[in-house]
Amino acid sequence: MSKQMRISIAGSGNMATRLCYAFQDAGVDIVQLLSSSDSGKRLSGFFEIERVENPAELKPVDVVLLCIKDDALISEYLSQFPESLLLCHTSGSVSLDVFGKRKHSGVFYPLQTLSKNREVEFNNIPVCLEAEDKNDLELLQILASKISNDVRIINSKLRKDIHLAAVFVSNFVNHLYNVSEDLLTEKNIDFDILRPLIMETAAKVQTISPTDAQTGPALRRDHKIIDKHLELLSNHPEYQHIYNIFSKSIAENN
Amino acid sequence: MSKQMRISIAGSGNMATRLCYAFQDAGVDIVQLLSSSDSGKRLSGFFEIERVENPAELKPVDVVLLCIKDDALISEYLSQFPESLLLCHTSGSVSLDVFGKRKHSGVFYPLQTLSKNREVEFNNIPVCLEAEDKNDLELLQILASKISNDVRIINSKLRKDIHLAAVFVSNFVNHLYNVSEDLLTEKNIDFDILRPLIMETAAKVQTISPTDAQTGPALRRDHKIIDKHLELLSNHPEYQHIYNIFSKSIAENN
Repeated sequence: MSKQMRISIAGSGNMATRLCYAFQDAGVDIVQLLSSSDSGKRLSGFFEIERVENPAELKPVDVVLLCIKDDALISEYLSQFPESLLLCHTSGSVSLDVFGKRKHSGVFYPLQTLSKNREVEFNNIPVCLEAEDKNDLELLQILASKISNDVRIINSKLRKDIHLAAVFVSNFVNHLYNVSEDLLTEKNIDFDILRPLIMETAAKVQTISPTDAQTGPALRRDHKIIDKHLELLSNHPEYQHIYNIFSKSIAENN
Repeated sequence: MSKQMRISIAGSGNMATRLCYAFQDAGVDIVQLLSSSDSGKRLSGFFEIERVENPAELKPVDVVLLCIKDDALISEYLSQFPESLLLCHTSGSVSLDVFGKRKHSGVFYPLQTLSKNREVEFNNIPVCLEAEDKNDLELLQILASKISNDVRIINSKLRKDIHLAAVFVSNFVNHLYNVSEDLLTEKNIDFDILRPLIMETAAKVQTISPTDAQTGPALRRDHKIIDKHLELLSNHPEYQHIYNIFSKSIAENN
């Protein structure tokens, strides 16, 4: 596992940025950054990586990571990349098929919510890998294990299921945080009062199943409190709707 | 703040159990446990606290904490407690009014999800206090500060708003964890793959606002992925419904 690896990265968003940090920390050589945007200029400047704007300018490396979310963009770009390069996309929801008949291709999907400005420990992030070619897959395993201790081989179908579940526990969960902040701000209460509860709710399911972790009025079928809450939400029909369907669902599933 | 305090606790559920741990760790003298249930017997045995079944048997102490969720039960019990005792309930959603014209009463509400068998660090848990009488409130402040560094005086109206917001970030969030576990189990994927993402999603909003923390297809208005996800959920109309309203709401609010 001590092979010195050389990669290039395409993109300049959250994924590209956090991968630059992770791979540079891990001593992987990031040879080029493919990006023509202003944020690409900043990113290549910050990490002192050579920046190119045209896929044809990419040098031979072990892997090129396409940090681009949109499958239409990925397929549009494809033909411009030298055929010899092992191209990997980093998206949870895009199939390996996007690469068509391309010889060397794969998927390198770190299952985490990434933001440009937020540091994140890559060590325990599950990295989901996929490739047709056995040698390509091996290369991806070596690369992924440089930044994470949780490397998994997952096919496109399962990866999509995982990505869907991830949307529920991350984007939708964050939306509930947002709703609460909205409700509290309206009453001039600082969101910080909920922060320990938010951490503990997440920490609880690190060791036990969510089914065993559940508490609260819906679980107890405490209709007196549920009705009071719905009344408090009378100015927010949208939140009232969420409250209703969640309370019913919790009572039914437990 | 070094006054030796003496309290009694009524109840034997999650709240009573975790308060026994917290107060015993803090060197507070738990004089009696009021409970007639089997779990009350176990709890008093474990902590070597004298157990009584009748409120009239309660000895004079600084505070009696009623760890009972239901306001009907609280008011039913009330007249049986010696008038001289400072009675506090521990519920987020029950008003101080539940104590009627009682002389010494208050609220002692630790804002956290508590389970009998799960250890929890009380230090940073916001404890929301309320009492009519100034001296009673002072006593509660001294007591709360024995177990937490975040003691707040919050009236009944605001406490209810906070409790409602807490249901969103804890019970409803946990339900989303539950939905994801359900979706993954169906595909024979272990829930553990989501655990780092769950932790990071919660950790993110410890320092930034949920609005700034949001990522994902709904935020990007990526309808191609959204439609794929809805299709994957075609066997789960209930989850499909949640997916739809959350995606719309995220796109509208950001």
